[in-house]
Amino acid sequence: MSEKKHSLPVTREEDFSAWYQAVINGADLAENSSVRGCMVIKPFGFAIWECMQSILDAKFKELGHHNCYFPLLIPVELFEQEAEHVAGFAKEMAIVTHHRLEYKDGKFVPASPLETPLAIRPTSELIIGESMARWINSYRDLPVMINQWCNIVRWEMRTRMFLRTSEFLWQEGHTAHETEEEARLESRTMHDVYHWFIRDILKMFCIAGEKPAHDKFAGAIETLTIEAMMQDGKALQAATSHYLGQNFAKAVNIRFQGRDGALHYAHTTSWGATTRMIGGLIMAHADDDGLNLPSEVAPYHVVIIPILKGTDQDGEILEYCQKIKASIQKDARVFVDLKEIPSQNKKWDYVRKGIPFICEVGINELKNESVFFTKRASELEKVRMSLGEFAARLGYLIREHDEVLQKKNESAGQQKIVRNIKTFGELRDYFSRSNGFVLAKWSGSEKNLDLLDELAVSIRCLPNQQTGTSEKCILTGEDATIDIVLAKSY
Amino acid sequence: MSEKKHSLPVTREEDFSAWYQAVINGADLAENSSVRGCMVIKPFGFAIWECMQSILDAKFKELGHHNCYFPLLIPVELFEQEAEHVAGFAKEMAIVTHHRLEYKDGKFVPASPLETPLAIRPTSELIIGESMARWINSYRDLPVMINQWCNIVRWEMRTRMFLRTSEFLWQEGHTAHETEEEARLESRTMHDVYHWFIRDILKMFCIAGEKPAHDKFAGAIETLTIEAMMQDGKALQAATSHYLGQNFAKAVNIRFQGRDGALHYAHTTSWGATTRMIGGLIMAHADDDGLNLPSEVAPYHVVIIPILKGTDQDGEILEYCQKIKASIQKDARVFVDLKEIPSQNKKWDYVRKGIPFICEVGINELKNESVFFTKRASELEKVRMSLGEFAARLGYLIREHDEVLQKKNESAGQQKIVRNIKTFGELRDYFSRSNGFVLAKWSGSEKNLDLLDELAVSIRCLPNQQTGTSEKCILTGEDATIDIVLAKSY
Repeated sequence: MSEKKHSLPVTREEDFSAWYQAVINGADLAENSSVRGCMVIKPFGFAIWECMQSILDAKFKELGHHNCYFPLLIPVELFEQEAEHVAGFAKEMAIVTHHRLEYKDGKFVPASPLETPLAIRPTSELIIGESMARWINSYRDLPVMINQWCNIVRWEMRTRMFLRTSEFLWQEGHTAHETEEEARLESRTMHDVYHWFIRDILKMFCIAGEKPAHDKFAGAIETLTIEAMMQDGKALQAATSHYLGQNFAKAVNIRFQGRDGALHYAHTTSWGATTRMIGGLIMAHADDDGLNLPSEVAPYHVVIIPILKGTDQDGEILEYCQKIKASIQKDARVFVDLKEIPSQNKKWDYVRKGIPFICEVGINELKNESVFFTKRASELEKVRMSLGEFAARLGYLIREHDEVLQKKNESAGQQKIVRNIKTFGELRDYFSRSNGFVLAKWSGSEKNLDLLDELAVSIRCLPNQQTGTSEKCILTGEDATIDIVLAKSY
Repeated sequence: MSEKKHSLPVTREEDFSAWYQAVINGADLAENSSVRGCMVIKPFGFAIWECMQSILDAKFKELGHHNCYFPLLIPVELFEQEAEHVAGFAKEMAIVTHHRLEYKDGKFVPASPLETPLAIRPTSELIIGESMARWINSYRDLPVMINQWCNIVRWEMRTRMFLRTSEFLWQEGHTAHETEEEARLESRTMHDVYHWFIRDILKMFCIAGEKPAHDKFAGAIETLTIEAMMQDGKALQAATSHYLGQNFAKAVNIRFQGRDGALHYAHTTSWGATTRMIGGLIMAHADDDGLNLPSEVAPYHVVIIPILKGTDQDGEILEYCQKIKASIQKDARVFVDLKEIPSQNKKWDYVRKGIPFICEVGINELKNESVFFTKRASELEKVRMSLGEFAARLGYLIREHDEVLQKKNESAGQQKIVRNIKTFGELRDYFSRSNGFVLAKWSGSEKNLDLLDELAVSIRCLPNQQTGTSEKCILTGEDATIDIVLAKSY
């Protein structure tokens, strides 16, 4: 394959959606399963998720959260406690009705019906709240700060790998506090953690803000979101934090004796991030040669490919590969690929997987103790240096790699930020020919929101940074002070 | 509370089963949920599971396995492919039949039936095998060695926390190989890993061996097991490894082109360990004061409790606690408990949680820069030493703690190993008054196995160490050379 051409069968320009799938196939991240809407996360995709998990998990624990595990199955009656919440999920719940299979007329059929049907968790506020109600008696028991890493089922009709699947993996944090102030602070703090993770670790261009009232999490008082911009100018809601007020506490009776001796309902929060972030990573950083991985979530920083010719020197080349590994493994995750497939195929496999540095090691490198490598993020630039220099500079090279990804994504993102649209007509015009984040003004009224539906555009968030200026509302023409971000979204 | 009495409301002697539950409550490991047979794993219980996970996961990866994630839901038709396998699980499967809830006559009812019902995974051989069939084409693609950490549902009728619950957590390893020899070696290797983990990390007295043919995993050719002995002399099957032959490969069509150019079915294995090991840990090491944790799975090795008197010196005491922590945190997991509850209550909480070293820090300790601590495993012995000595000796103290647990468990276990039972009459007599592991001889015939059922006893395994001597079969009186372990079990 010539290095002038692209490694993927389709480019972003040609068909963004087919390209997205081609990146997944090319990097061998995931595949469809025989179960409608459920995917298999393959080793390389899962290794990225493990990197994400370990960074977030350490941060959650540092902030005082403890991991737990709550049941997968939730009695349907429990949903009846919080009407607004259940309305948000009722349409997409997988329901268990039987607990046995019976062989009948040549096939297996469900047998032994349950007395009450059970839903597979679409989220766990209610079942966790039930436990909290048992755990919390006094203000001394507060705050309760827990998290779980688990699988979730929401029966999606139109699915897309990582972005929207009937089953997905996530973490869900749940906390209960004595006061509204503390609970709001917790929800803000976790919002900041997600912002840090998406922007500083995943190097994604994003805007942090609050969801408008009509788009909050079912049952929440306030939903905070990180809206990341994809290369096609659409938004991806990457992680959300909710202040739930006393709604769930009232539904499941989380009460405590306060400092005043009286009984109070707790103030609760919840916050979550999912495997969908892997989809975001793809649409933010991948190019027409495949994936690009920020270093902190790269399963390997360096892959070493021995170029063997079937000669006597093969043994020495393999030894030299191990020497390179030994020289750098203190500072980086390194893998020597010994699989028996042609080395040129291997190289392109790792380009498509987004490995930051791909070293090809043959007789030349062995002879002069050098390292010859491809810098994935820098247009596949090829570099040669001595092993000593490579080992000494690798820390710098990794930081440089991250900066290249960050700057590319930032500058592409900034170009799709639109600030000069003032009327709905201009907005319609813009989205009929382009995609991006439109920063506009909104009165806060829900009037004319349906106009946005026609454009398949929505208010992604009210950015945390509000200018405070007064202009005309993009939907109603009324006076408006609220800054909003409008975009199409995944 | 006097330290002469026991910290739990019931002793092992009085009621082993009530004591087991009291240990769980006392250490705050888990609780029942509102879903029949499903438990909530609370922060301290989950932290123990995280310790177990991190040790096993690192070992699996070191041996070349990769983590993945496969769907929770399995189409029921898929079970029809492997009749023996499904027969083993059909009676206890949770079946999803609908994908929506509808509000009707004041309650939520299942709506939108699925075209084909889906089972929640009781184990994943078939759904993972289906993926392997896609991944494997040539001998060059082999071996495939994967693992997943996930939740499992088996609809148990009689449940018991950690030991038998309708939902539990586990890891399941699945591998495919070119030859029978390689697959059998893999299954043996993972058996050895489990043996190391149960015996050397969890310090549990156990016997490793093979399951008799009538008690293999559904669909397996060979099942290897670690049978750990509990303090009441019963066995706990702690982790199993299966050589599956070509059975599953044929069911889901895992075929590859071999070195000879012909198509062959792969040889597969699977192996798993579950949260049930936490139940084993309790019944192996806990005493009438509560849990006892081997150091490698102790969320904290040292807990520091400040004894505050509401005087001016409280601040200095708290500072001194942080100084102790700083002096030892390089070598141990340390926690300073700042909760506002009486320090004496705290101490007994940590005794019940099985924390190896519980330090109480008051004015005396502050004055002479000493550490006063309780050694959990050594009959709650109290020790005072200088902070310098404590910091210098902590590594030794932790090893000593583990040795105490290991020796106690080993000597209690050895006392319940019975070698002099030669006839079924003697066996019946023994189990009518006692419990333990009876080492006996078996012809290998399934004749008279039902006699064991009457005693609620089973052949736990054929130990890996076979003596090769010939005696009479304990069931039939025929000549027999096979060594077996007989016991009651959980």
